[in-house]
Amino acid sequence: MEFSVSERMKSLKGSAIREMFKAMADPTMISLAGGNPAAELFPNEALAQIASDILKNNPVGALQYGISEGNVALREKIIEFVKDRENIEVSLDEITIVSGGQQAIEITSKILLNEGDSVIVEAPSFVGGLNAFRSYGANLVGVDVESDGMNIEKLKDAIKNTPNVKLIYTIPNFQNPSGVTMSVEKRKAIYEIARDNGIFIIEDNPYGELTFDGVKLPTIKSFDEDGVVLYSGSFSKILAPGLRLGYLIAPKTFTEKAVLGKQVSDVHTPCLPQLLALEFMNRYDIVELIEKMRELYKKKCNLMIDAMKKYLPEEITYTVPGGGLFVWCNAPGIDTLKLSQECIAEKVLIVPGNNFATDQSLVNNGFRLNFSTMPDDKIVEGVKRLGTVLKKYYK
Amino acid sequence: MEFSVSERMKSLKGSAIREMFKAMADPTMISLAGGNPAAELFPNEALAQIASDILKNNPVGALQYGISEGNVALREKIIEFVKDRENIEVSLDEITIVSGGQQAIEITSKILLNEGDSVIVEAPSFVGGLNAFRSYGANLVGVDVESDGMNIEKLKDAIKNTPNVKLIYTIPNFQNPSGVTMSVEKRKAIYEIARDNGIFIIEDNPYGELTFDGVKLPTIKSFDEDGVVLYSGSFSKILAPGLRLGYLIAPKTFTEKAVLGKQVSDVHTPCLPQLLALEFMNRYDIVELIEKMRELYKKKCNLMIDAMKKYLPEEITYTVPGGGLFVWCNAPGIDTLKLSQECIAEKVLIVPGNNFATDQSLVNNGFRLNFSTMPDDKIVEGVKRLGTVLKKYYK
Repeated sequence: MEFSVSERMKSLKGSAIREMFKAMADPTMISLAGGNPAAELFPNEALAQIASDILKNNPVGALQYGISEGNVALREKIIEFVKDRENIEVSLDEITIVSGGQQAIEITSKILLNEGDSVIVEAPSFVGGLNAFRSYGANLVGVDVESDGMNIEKLKDAIKNTPNVKLIYTIPNFQNPSGVTMSVEKRKAIYEIARDNGIFIIEDNPYGELTFDGVKLPTIKSFDEDGVVLYSGSFSKILAPGLRLGYLIAPKTFTEKAVLGKQVSDVHTPCLPQLLALEFMNRYDIVELIEKMRELYKKKCNLMIDAMKKYLPEEITYTVPGGGLFVWCNAPGIDTLKLSQECIAEKVLIVPGNNFATDQSLVNNGFRLNFSTMPDDKIVEGVKRLGTVLKKYYK
Repeated sequence: MEFSVSERMKSLKGSAIREMFKAMADPTMISLAGGNPAAELFPNEALAQIASDILKNNPVGALQYGISEGNVALREKIIEFVKDRENIEVSLDEITIVSGGQQAIEITSKILLNEGDSVIVEAPSFVGGLNAFRSYGANLVGVDVESDGMNIEKLKDAIKNTPNVKLIYTIPNFQNPSGVTMSVEKRKAIYEIARDNGIFIIEDNPYGELTFDGVKLPTIKSFDEDGVVLYSGSFSKILAPGLRLGYLIAPKTFTEKAVLGKQVSDVHTPCLPQLLALEFMNRYDIVELIEKMRELYKKKCNLMIDAMKKYLPEEITYTVPGGGLFVWCNAPGIDTLKLSQECIAEKVLIVPGNNFATDQSLVNNGFRLNFSTMPDDKIVEGVKRLGTVLKKYYK
């Protein structure tokens, strides 16, 4: 039977990154796309024991329906965690457990956005966030990311010139895809601008803990005295993404709506992933695990940067990130969508920059590389293959 | 900060049933509300062993990002299951794994409904389904459920008199809340009406396996030669609801959109619940577990009906269901919302009928009782308490 997709879904294209999973079926392919954490750090033996204990001793907790807000003990644990790690003070009725950070953005969009409302986003930005806004018919307005975060003057102009701005979406730490970290001054400026204009900020912070040198800047949420910041936290990059576990911290009145949104989306996040994260944090020091990740990713990032110096043409410029999972590159004069297709023929995957743009149809010179997923030798070989493709352009 | 909720969320009230979870904190409360399966049949020891094995032997499968479509081996297992159990023939690219049946409805709404489009629903119907449609701004049109399912003449009239009908939502087996099973003739009639009018059917079938006498009528999907039926299957009532695991079977072109909807909602369903269900079906005969459930629920249903005959005033009429989890009652002249509040004072929870109505603000004489959750003695005591409250009305 023929059908028409809803207006809101018409603008939505799949994530190129997730499409590339298919190319990964070829074992000779090297993926510098994607954002998978390093699987060797998954604490799977510990989780095996915990899962077994939970299912044996607490079958109702693990297998019966739970509440839409999420497990109370896990929410209490998160209260401690965000106080300790991010200086965020929050109460139980300000946290909703969600199925990964993506769902925090999706539910926020459902609650706030009428079709045609505007969302200000970083340019470039995370495609999953952009698609969540698109899927509720939002108009996306990009504000350029500089080496210290959003251009504040352009942000002010965008707010002034755009009707019905409901949200500012930012990833302040080791931004996806740019790798940039927003300065403290800009965090404060954005907070004040949002507050003064009655606009919510979504502060999406999946990578904040993955700082290579241990320096962490204050979260925007930690300044929030006015209920302006909706903070999305995730276990994907500090424990395991396959658990699909995150949390939305928001003012109580907003959280009441978020719980309704969660209820109507999928009733509640599965119990077992919630209990696994809780019990892992009870039995182990998750900060020790985070420190291992920092060390590994720092090493892999350095390896990639060294390979880039060696194998890429000098025309290619890039950010050297202080943490996170990504290096963002600029290839002057090159349509990187075409480049990414040529890379597939050379058996290396990269993500072209148009994927992260508000208008995906425009030619884009940026591309993103990931250093967390591949083994060391493949990182070097992947960059080398990329260099081979790029050198055809710059002779 | 003050905020306005989106237009689409304005009509949404929380599920009264999930609100009642709070009253359940009182240990003297007896819940005949809710729809929790009997926890004593959760195969928790088997799942403990399976979870441990999976996490030890397949850490990447359990903990790394998965694909939005859902685990391939689980989808292949579901292909066998629905062929064997429901005579549904389907291929891999027609199945999306979702986080419970609720999400199948939510994603379908996201894909198909523009704000103001209409959805025809059974009157009464499952509040989670109604809320999913409401959350995309749909206009709900109720069609009365008779003892053999939807009134077909009223369905035809509703389609004729309503613009932009995009969906017909039905639970053909042991409907929630009415307990009614749709006849084969009506299944065929609805299929033909939907097909001839270019309207999709959502066939929501969480309870079909819970037949007391072993009789199962053919699913509407099993007639579907024209890609009219979107079939929502669930593991909640045949394995465990806390896993939040279900599947949407739909034509390939629709499934492509469903996968996009899934990606933007929460990237993918957590891996571990998917692998638990898969491996449980590999190691055990899930039909044996289903047969235990049938037997237990039949016993509990009979117990409830016997208690109702004994303790409820003769004015109360009710369906005697052939399966599922619910008995639907009619209390002539009584506002059952008020009744349900009086029941709380008497320490018994029931669900008032307005909860299942397209217009929740209208006075409703129906209420729903659940027999699957409580131990036997509490079922009897709960009905007795309900009788005490009802007898004040019919003197």
